[in-house]
Amino acid sequence: MLVVMKAQATPEEIQVVCEHIEQLGFRPHPMPGAQRTAIGITGNQGQIDQGNIEELSGVAEVIRVSKPYKLVSRDVKDEDTIIRFPGTNASIGGRDLAVIAGPCSIETREQAFAVAEQVAAAGAQFFRGGAYKPRTSPYAFQGLGEEALKIMAEIRDKYGLRIVTEAIDTEALELVNDYADIIQIGARNMQNYSLLRAAGKKRKPVLLKRGMAATLEEFLMAAEYIMSEGNYEVILCERGVRTFAEHTRFTLDLSVVPAVQRLSHLPIVVDPSHGTGKRNKVIALSRAAVAVGADGLIVEVHHQPDKALSDGAQSIYPEQFTQLMDEAGQIAQVLHRNLP
Amino acid sequence: MLVVMKAQATPEEIQVVCEHIEQLGFRPHPMPGAQRTAIGITGNQGQIDQGNIEELSGVAEVIRVSKPYKLVSRDVKDEDTIIRFPGTNASIGGRDLAVIAGPCSIETREQAFAVAEQVAAAGAQFFRGGAYKPRTSPYAFQGLGEEALKIMAEIRDKYGLRIVTEAIDTEALELVNDYADIIQIGARNMQNYSLLRAAGKKRKPVLLKRGMAATLEEFLMAAEYIMSEGNYEVILCERGVRTFAEHTRFTLDLSVVPAVQRLSHLPIVVDPSHGTGKRNKVIALSRAAVAVGADGLIVEVHHQPDKALSDGAQSIYPEQFTQLMDEAGQIAQVLHRNLP
Amino acid sequence: MLVVMKAQATPEEIQVVCEHIEQLGFRPHPMPGAQRTAIGITGNQGQIDQGNIEELSGVAEVIRVSKPYKLVSRDVKDEDTIIRFPGTNASIGGRDLAVIAGPCSIETREQAFAVAEQVAAAGAQFFRGGAYKPRTSPYAFQGLGEEALKIMAEIRDKYGLRIVTEAIDTEALELVNDYADIIQIGARNMQNYSLLRAAGKKRKPVLLKRGMAATLEEFLMAAEYIMSEGNYEVILCERGVRTFAEHTRFTLDLSVVPAVQRLSHLPIVVDPSHGTGKRNKVIALSRAAVAVGADGLIVEVHHQPDKALSDGAQSIYPEQFTQLMDEAGQIAQVLHRNLP
Amino acid sequence: MLVVMKAQATPEEIQVVCEHIEQLGFRPHPMPGAQRTAIGITGNQGQIDQGNIEELSGVAEVIRVSKPYKLVSRDVKDEDTIIRFPGTNASIGGRDLAVIAGPCSIETREQAFAVAEQVAAAGAQFFRGGAYKPRTSPYAFQGLGEEALKIMAEIRDKYGLRIVTEAIDTEALELVNDYADIIQIGARNMQNYSLLRAAGKKRKPVLLKRGMAATLEEFLMAAEYIMSEGNYEVILCERGVRTFAEHTRFTLDLSVVPAVQRLSHLPIVVDPSHGTGKRNKVIALSRAAVAVGADGLIVEVHHQPDKALSDGAQSIYPEQFTQLMDEAGQIAQVLHRNLP
Repeated sequence: MLVVMKAQATPEEIQVVCEHIEQLGFRPHPMPGAQRTAIGITGNQGQIDQGNIEELSGVAEVIRVSKPYKLVSRDVKDEDTIIRFPGTNASIGGRDLAVIAGPCSIETREQAFAVAEQVAAAGAQFFRGGAYKPRTSPYAFQGLGEEALKIMAEIRDKYGLRIVTEAIDTEALELVNDYADIIQIGARNMQNYSLLRAAGKKRKPVLLKRGMAATLEEFLMAAEYIMSEGNYEVILCERGVRTFAEHTRFTLDLSVVPAVQRLSHLPIVVDPSHGTGKRNKVIALSRAAVAVGADGLIVEVHHQPDKALSDGAQSIYPEQFTQLMDEAGQIAQVLHRNLP
Repeated sequence: MLVVMKAQATPEEIQVVCEHIEQLGFRPHPMPGAQRTAIGITGNQGQIDQGNIEELSGVAEVIRVSKPYKLVSRDVKDEDTIIRFPGTNASIGGRDLAVIAGPCSIETREQAFAVAEQVAAAGAQFFRGGAYKPRTSPYAFQGLGEEALKIMAEIRDKYGLRIVTEAIDTEALELVNDYADIIQIGARNMQNYSLLRAAGKKRKPVLLKRGMAATLEEFLMAAEYIMSEGNYEVILCERGVRTFAEHTRFTLDLSVVPAVQRLSHLPIVVDPSHGTGKRNKVIALSRAAVAVGADGLIVEVHHQPDKALSDGAQSIYPEQFTQLMDEAGQIAQVLHRNLP
Repeated sequence: MLVVMKAQATPEEIQVVCEHIEQLGFRPHPMPGAQRTAIGITGNQGQIDQGNIEELSGVAEVIRVSKPYKLVSRDVKDEDTIIRFPGTNASIGGRDLAVIAGPCSIETREQAFAVAEQVAAAGAQFFRGGAYKPRTSPYAFQGLGEEALKIMAEIRDKYGLRIVTEAIDTEALELVNDYADIIQIGARNMQNYSLLRAAGKKRKPVLLKRGMAATLEEFLMAAEYIMSEGNYEVILCERGVRTFAEHTRFTLDLSVVPAVQRLSHLPIVVDPSHGTGKRNKVIALSRAAVAVGADGLIVEVHHQPDKALSDGAQSIYPEQFTQLMDEAGQIAQVLHRNLP
Repeated sequence: MLVVMKAQATPEEIQVVCEHIEQLGFRPHPMPGAQRTAIGITGNQGQIDQGNIEELSGVAEVIRVSKPYKLVSRDVKDEDTIIRFPGTNASIGGRDLAVIAGPCSIETREQAFAVAEQVAAAGAQFFRGGAYKPRTSPYAFQGLGEEALKIMAEIRDKYGLRIVTEAIDTEALELVNDYADIIQIGARNMQNYSLLRAAGKKRKPVLLKRGMAATLEEFLMAAEYIMSEGNYEVILCERGVRTFAEHTRFTLDLSVVPAVQRLSHLPIVVDPSHGTGKRNKVIALSRAAVAVGADGLIVEVHHQPDKALSDGAQSIYPEQFTQLMDEAGQIAQVLHRNLP
């Protein structure tokens, strides 16, 4: 259920409606928009008597929502969600494209700084690096853990880059929340609902990767889990889906970008590194992702990919990243967007 | 790396080899077989000097394993793993087929007992029921939690059924481990490695469902995660994979049963309920699963499926379950197996 | 549109209705059933005035069909189609299962006879062999053409086996129609509509393989193309669909068997050879196919598979075929069916 | 097998090598390049004695090719194939992008001319329109046949557009070859090898669409069928593959563009209309296709899509096509390419 407030509704009126919803035993989600505020209601099973709410001061209308997703939907909030990072001019979801770059895993302080310096120089505003790695094999390198988080915190201080790193479980989530600027939920955990709920209780933006076999509806419902806990800053990420095709590791589904944008106000970025699994296709698919209208890119860069402890085959060289930034920036112009 | 002991090796010799491996900083996994014991070594990165181990008393040979999976592999243990339940004649993986039946979710004490009575009467030895439900929507019924576990414990006492229920996160795992006989890991969590590791630290059998887009190798590697922590009682479960086909909810991949059996000593059961998503196909695919050589079935049964809070469309009626047991039992005979 | 005649309608009344439909410029398809005759109408675009037809003598009712398939549907003909072969006791679609066996390609007279003798001895009633091979590479063995057809005609005479062979184009179709008992349309040609129409103009049964990415609806519509030309003897064949799974060449979708049987009166057989691509899985999946309720099997058998010019890896040895027949026969009994 | 001639080899030397190959009973395929000529040999089964050929005058080296494709490969011809249309400045495969636009089906002379006028005005150089339609249902509109071909011939005369239309069988191929400038082979016929061979015997360029479940290797091998008959002007076309995703009709696999370009010298264009099945995604995916590096686009345009007899839902309006041309042209500049 969705309460749409009048354009001229006051903060006090909004507050009264929220309290009324809470008294009924449900949860209000006020979503301010440019024109007016909408209030999503979760926790109900359709049994709310909407008549009472409609009579409250400042309420324009009450809408029963039949789609399974509510808070992610443009029905609740028509304007694009723009995620800002106080103290910086970085943002995700607005006119400026966000570029997140860095190595798959933080391997050493030297490696991390070497890559960070180069991606910062090329114009990236966000640095990615794995501290906790979800590896197919229990015997593969699993990440440096908190040590990696500390290295990334130093990188933020030195290069002004915002930090994005994955939380693979609720324990890692606490530490990631302490150190990072954006909490990443990986594709393999897209339907780990306990982790989604836990991330929803944090107050840092969450980058949610699409599961390798997730439908658009399942993808949006995973975001809904996070938002239903009160964290409205979710960044969706297309990273390739599993198909019969063998020429890439996954098949990057760029059509999901306009499909998401029709249904949801959340920003969506594209990961051409995991989406192809091959270095020689990353730049071409990065260009395509910007051209299709994505709000940003997340790209694996390594200064010595042949020595990388993970994902070396899909990491590009720093000089390729510079080329990527140049080409992506030009294409962004065609869409009246900007690569800062 | 794999150490194969001589047939006549003594327990003391095995112990010495294990201690030697530990001193090297690795982890030994002794796997007794009918003919001889093999000791898997995990934690190494290929740098062990195998010469020293080969010289220890009782060692027949040391094998470098190139496949990514070790402990799940028939290379380590050729004989089929048979999981037994002390105090009962139930088993999984041997000549007797295991049938696990019950409702998707435990909804009420009355519902659970009504179904349990009927599946026990029809010959099932295991009772399934969801206490914690991984639902696509945060607003759907999420299960009764510990209350459901207590109901199932009563059912075990009354009907002698072994209890199988899903742990959706590490918190639920503790409670499930307290109450259940088999810990289920669902398809959406097949690559939730933290949960797999935590389940590997328990000493109850784990039923691991195949992810909806998991390759055979990924499936076996997920089992390897559990085993690498020392829990060797893993039951694999095929439950359908995601394809373009629309006539069923998932496409049940029965060929994975003989494929698993060639590579691994672990038992594998089939879930025709999730594998088709349609009541009218459950019996036919149950027959096929037994015919292809599965070690058992896990089937959703509900006495009032039209009123079920989850998965009603794929739950069969108790009288259909009786027919299923009859037909499955006859087909088992053809394979020289038995439905108790 | 579908005209359902009264149970007591006379042949003359049926004839009058058919002529009336033809005068309207459409095509009548009388389908006699055990209880009554239905007459499918094709060629109309929904503009028929059904009132006139309903007033004709012997007409029970006129039904507008909304499903895209008509003639394949149980709406038109509720009873199972049973295809009989005059002069033999072989049939497809009834209580008796049909087993079609033989080599992928006819390579030499000696090879063909060697395999035929053994499959006949094991109880097969149908012999398959490729004369025209649709090969992925233009440089691979393409079949012996008419010479192979002549060899198969000799095999029919000597062993009493009915001959099944593929027509890869309209030219080959003419020759296949001259020599064979069943015209096979391969998976790659399932949507070669010109070939389907041409096969529909023949008066021999057509075995239609499911395309490797065909939905159930597309599969049935391909059969509809054949039937719309007046050839009502179509045998459907599941042979595996393309998925991400790598442990088999294709993923055999056994759930399509009960799905077809709900919607259509046409018989459906299963090809475990192409459906798995691996010899070591053919027997297990053959058992499963019979258990799921298929009307028969089509299996590749070769006396020297390692020397086969095509598909050797998935061809079973004659002694394996004997085992398959034994096990399939026992499972058929459980379904109250029979392997002759 | 592949014969690489010396850079300074004369036409006479090339001729002698070809004749030598023919005398051996094989087929030579001379492929002139900017630097030197290579001669592909087909028809051999690896039994050629390469020594003799290497001794012929002008031969640089003889290479055994292990890949299944030969003539499509950059091993045979490293330079991009550019297909030119005499008497026009249109080309496919060079610096200039090719845009093919028009309605799904030619419905009437008025409809065809209305669309043609607008796409010509917007800058398209090629006009597409279906005369023979491969429809899933035998009862759906099947195209106007030769009448449509005549209309398109008039359109060529009036607007200077080159004509692209599909040949669904060998009969249609003869007529299409008479009237059209490019022969289209549809996705459903990608493995209709008889049709591929027949198209290979024509001397007009062939636009070959990727099958909906074709791997890259199968796609290239289908082109090899055409080239092995001597027609070297093949244009590949990505048009979406079948996956579990439901938000588009097919999943457009843009990564196949750089994958093809690494392996093959043939041009590749993208069909965003069939690749998405949704009008509202055509422009976004067209931009992405140009950005990924495709050599052109094939787009469905209709002046009254709501009244189209086929594919209305994915046809864009003429004014949308103008916008598409504008945006695609700007993106082409970023890749140093040009939209004429």
